[in-house]
Amino acid sequence: MPLGQRAGDKSESRYCGVETEFNDDMPHVLAFNLSHGSFDFILAPLMDPAYRPSLMQKDSGVSGVLPFAGSDLVLSPSQWSGHVVGKVSSWIDLDSEDEILRCDSETTLKQEIAWASHLSLQACLLPAPKGKSCANYARCVNQLLQGLSGTQLWLRLPLVKSDSETKDVNTDTSDDSWEIWNSFRLLCEHHSQLSVALDVLSSLPSVISLGRWFGESVRAAIFSTDCFLTNARGYPCLSKRHQNLVHGLFNHSMQIVLSGEPVHSLPKINSHIAANDNDNNVDVVQKHPLRPYLDYVGYLYQRMDPLPEQERLEIGYRDYLQSPLQPLMDNLEAQTYETFEKDTMKYIQYQRAICKALQDRVPDDKASSVTTVLMVVGAGRGPLVRASLQAAEETGHKLKVYAVEKNPNAVVTLHSLVKLEGWENIVSIISCDMRYWDAPEKADILVSELLGSFGDNELSPECLDGAQGLLKDGGISIPSSYTSFIQPVTASKLYNDVKSHKDIAHFETAYVVKLHSIARLAPPQPVFTFDHPNHSTDKSNNRYTKLQFGITSDTGSVMIHGFAGYFDATLYKEVHLGIEPSTSTPNMFPIFFPLRTPITLSPGASLEVHFWRCCHPTKVWYEWCVASPSSSPIHNSNGRSYWVGL
Amino acid sequence: MPLGQRAGDKSESRYCGVETEFNDDMPHVLAFNLSHGSFDFILAPLMDPAYRPSLMQKDSGVSGVLPFAGSDLVLSPSQWSGHVVGKVSSWIDLDSEDEILRCDSETTLKQEIAWASHLSLQACLLPAPKGKSCANYARCVNQLLQGLSGTQLWLRLPLVKSDSETKDVNTDTSDDSWEIWNSFRLLCEHHSQLSVALDVLSSLPSVISLGRWFGESVRAAIFSTDCFLTNARGYPCLSKRHQNLVHGLFNHSMQIVLSGEPVHSLPKINSHIAANDNDNNVDVVQKHPLRPYLDYVGYLYQRMDPLPEQERLEIGYRDYLQSPLQPLMDNLEAQTYETFEKDTMKYIQYQRAICKALQDRVPDDKASSVTTVLMVVGAGRGPLVRASLQAAEETGHKLKVYAVEKNPNAVVTLHSLVKLEGWENIVSIISCDMRYWDAPEKADILVSELLGSFGDNELSPECLDGAQGLLKDGGISIPSSYTSFIQPVTASKLYNDVKSHKDIAHFETAYVVKLHSIARLAPPQPVFTFDHPNHSTDKSNNRYTKLQFGITSDTGSVMIHGFAGYFDATLYKEVHLGIEPSTSTPNMFPIFFPLRTPITLSPGASLEVHFWRCCHPTKVWYEWCVASPSSSPIHNSNGRSYWVGL
Repeated sequence: MPLGQRAGDKSESRYCGVETEFNDDMPHVLAFNLSHGSFDFILAPLMDPAYRPSLMQKDSGVSGVLPFAGSDLVLSPSQWSGHVVGKVSSWIDLDSEDEILRCDSETTLKQEIAWASHLSLQACLLPAPKGKSCANYARCVNQLLQGLSGTQLWLRLPLVKSDSETKDVNTDTSDDSWEIWNSFRLLCEHHSQLSVALDVLSSLPSVISLGRWFGESVRAAIFSTDCFLTNARGYPCLSKRHQNLVHGLFNHSMQIVLSGEPVHSLPKINSHIAANDNDNNVDVVQKHPLRPYLDYVGYLYQRMDPLPEQERLEIGYRDYLQSPLQPLMDNLEAQTYETFEKDTMKYIQYQRAICKALQDRVPDDKASSVTTVLMVVGAGRGPLVRASLQAAEETGHKLKVYAVEKNPNAVVTLHSLVKLEGWENIVSIISCDMRYWDAPEKADILVSELLGSFGDNELSPECLDGAQGLLKDGGISIPSSYTSFIQPVTASKLYNDVKSHKDIAHFETAYVVKLHSIARLAPPQPVFTFDHPNHSTDKSNNRYTKLQFGITSDTGSVMIHGFAGYFDATLYKEVHLGIEPSTSTPNMFPIFFPLRTPITLSPGASLEVHFWRCCHPTKVWYEWCVASPSSSPIHNSNGRSYWVGL
Repeated sequence: MPLGQRAGDKSESRYCGVETEFNDDMPHVLAFNLSHGSFDFILAPLMDPAYRPSLMQKDSGVSGVLPFAGSDLVLSPSQWSGHVVGKVSSWIDLDSEDEILRCDSETTLKQEIAWASHLSLQACLLPAPKGKSCANYARCVNQLLQGLSGTQLWLRLPLVKSDSETKDVNTDTSDDSWEIWNSFRLLCEHHSQLSVALDVLSSLPSVISLGRWFGESVRAAIFSTDCFLTNARGYPCLSKRHQNLVHGLFNHSMQIVLSGEPVHSLPKINSHIAANDNDNNVDVVQKHPLRPYLDYVGYLYQRMDPLPEQERLEIGYRDYLQSPLQPLMDNLEAQTYETFEKDTMKYIQYQRAICKALQDRVPDDKASSVTTVLMVVGAGRGPLVRASLQAAEETGHKLKVYAVEKNPNAVVTLHSLVKLEGWENIVSIISCDMRYWDAPEKADILVSELLGSFGDNELSPECLDGAQGLLKDGGISIPSSYTSFIQPVTASKLYNDVKSHKDIAHFETAYVVKLHSIARLAPPQPVFTFDHPNHSTDKSNNRYTKLQFGITSDTGSVMIHGFAGYFDATLYKEVHLGIEPSTSTPNMFPIFFPLRTPITLSPGASLEVHFWRCCHPTKVWYEWCVASPSSSPIHNSNGRSYWVGL
């Protein structure tokens, strides 16, 4: 039974599981934990923990039946696949020095995964590696992953990280389970069916190091009853830090699993009945011993704020890679205009900027006598025309507007808008590319909304340079400047999506994406800035920037899959618009620049990144690379994979 | 004029060049240095070093002619391409903080490379990066490399490496030019047209650090006249260490270029005439000022030992990747037998081993009465049959031989050999796979030569396990055991050849290759051992080994492209056979295991490598990975790319 309903949230974190001990009466275990315990699924051992292949062979030869927990017929296929996560024998140790144990472990692991696959289980939990070394374990899991159809493998790992900031990077004394995960998944080539299940303990690592896991494929968090505190009424509850973690898990579709013996003695509940009680007499009215813990988790779920309307609309876009627009080469579609025009906050900012510009341009005492010439370049279906007229009305300034638009389809809408609103005497519609329009007069104010997620990536600089001749000397461009920003991120989901194309071109492309399951590893830094009108003698829009990102050592080791990109624009004076997280005006998705090979950084290491904006007569593109601690290839050389056409 | 003739050596190191200053009379420069100087090529600036694009534009606008050293017509196309290596302006600095210098540098570099390409020059020399940072330089060169047809780019680098072993690996205080090269070529994705030209100085880094360059694509070494000492007669000569370096260069097809002013005042030579003298009066009999230096280099070349016969035969195989044999699935060809049988050293070792085994098996006093049964399993065209009979003759032992061979084509040759030699009464030929032969009696001695370059890689273990039933209890197997070895190597040529296939499969394949242009970074270590007959209770031929390679910090940073693999076999007691470098019996090429992504190691770092031998009913394969300092993917999971069929 799901934890509750949360408007807009369809994620798997509504379901809560429970870890059980080995029991060959699976129907009972399922009935007890689901029907009577209200859990949604069980994390159940698949095989008798006493089993060892090396002993079996001596005893019974090749005819032995493997000691699985019941045949496939004891549950229906939908029960197996919908409600059971298989738990691989926890004694296995594929990196043991003991060769017999190692071989037994490999045999058992293969038998159990084959069985889980036979049952079409959705997932199997792999026990945590026993030591720091996990290469043989990873080799065997990697072999299994090659042939596994639907089953996910969840590698169990304790959520631990020692705080010692002074530890030597050369000696392997770290106690950071993320490092074991990183090593394991690198050995398994970032396989998309390999995920993590975190064992949450009573003490938690630092918040900043926890953040790393939100960029990883974590499917479940197993909360031992030991994690829970006791509230005033004797009921289990969690510390504030654990609650924050739970919220993070809920927000990232990570499922909670409860585990262990009840440690809170509540009245009215017989705490002696264990989760996997053998007593078949389930008809007796009895409460599941972990029910108070589940109730508390459900309480935390239901207490969460509902998703905001905008988030709900965008939930389907989370971590979904979209190719950036080619607004110059292609004409935008009606649907795209529709989306843009919904961003009311943006047009409020534009209107504010235009008001200020009008007031600066013409003193209030001349407002009724002097007509300001304003050109909207790239008018689309007219939202900036409307904002301009509203600004004129608000300030009482006289305005003459030219609406310049190259897309003939948008011009149709513009004409009907002007007619509908009765703006014929104020607004002239010019169906022309702004770069080539031979205007009858020059403008006081040039207004445009040509910025992409990364600022200049939809060629605003080239368009506005081309339109600069339309502006009077001393005229105002809105926006007057814009700057792009990047920050390094962990984003294993995005990385795997890019990788699934199996080519280099997709790794050398920037994507527009609503970033959600990522870890932001350092504050964003500015990359390229453009000013309009552009008065510099060097008119080149080529840019080159070298950035150093320091990642605080408290974060621990991190993996960088690429860079999140944003922009901030100064529309006019103090009126800003942008998606740089610290100053964000919402409703435009960031951009993501992937790295062909993700880079692992040691704790406290610094990252040197180079970004280029390169211009040719027919196209503009970015190149990027990491130069330290080690050099990556230069991505997108000559714009071979990704470019924006002029 | 080549430095001389050396039997079997057709490499480019026979040609010696000279570096010249800018001179727009190219025909004169060429005539002076080639006809009168006896050099084979010149390293000549392509453009007036005073040229700066930013100044040009102000002076002459777009109509300016670029100040190249003469038009393309002043030399014939074959003179340009055969005798001129273009030298890019040495003032360029693409990573300068000064933006004007940076842009001027980029423009000039592009113009010069375009010009060199227009002239079809074989190579252009790029000046050394001015500082530690080279990302923008590399970005520009990488762009040029994408569109360059035939011209090679040689990055000039001083041959320096500071000795400070105590330097902090985290602070970039190293003075190792290899690190700049490594960074540059990583940024340029190991482009095959990007090579190195080393500036040799009067003091040399340690021999072990020099060794790294022999695994890299070094095309030239530029010796300044300052490097030369003066011998007793006043002539230039080189220190012993420089001489050893020159030998290394000659052996690796690296060309020598002389550079600088003459610093030895010799009688009879007018040392005031510079290499690029403007004086057109070349008919005057005058010696090139660097001629004594060239003569000395020629002397060093001619003094080298001629290539041994075997090396001469194998020169075409140097660094040439071959797929390993599939001797079980495929029948070998006559040509392959021919090559194997030429290895006389091998059969001498086998004969020695058989002699000892015969003597151990039957005391000398019973030699004439007791007949030893010997089976050659995998007899091929009979070389081991011959070795066995010769051993019997040598020791005076009576022998009965079964020659078992599965290849029906080889059996034809075996029959005619036995007939020709009159061995019919001693040798029985069995046309059968040794694993399935139902023998009339058991053998005292089982002789085989089933070892591949990596020992067990041609499935000797599986074949001999299958044939073990043919051997009496207490019988002898020759070989009685074998061990594979690996060592990490720098091998940029091999890496690029594997990479040229543009797929993962070729990076997950082991190759037989005569390793030449490689740097061996640590002593080989044993990997897998097999004993015959195999008395262990666990009959599995699966193997797993974890190895730690320490690379001495004196070597500096290194790049590991993969692993060289060898074997050593104990034929019988102290009689060995193998290609492990420390005990090598020649004439079999090593094996090479590539890494999909080469790994850079910091000075003194250690490398953890895992190797697996995996067996299935139909095939055997290896998997391998690096686990430290960072984890690589596991290569060849489930033998998906490379396997040997049973």
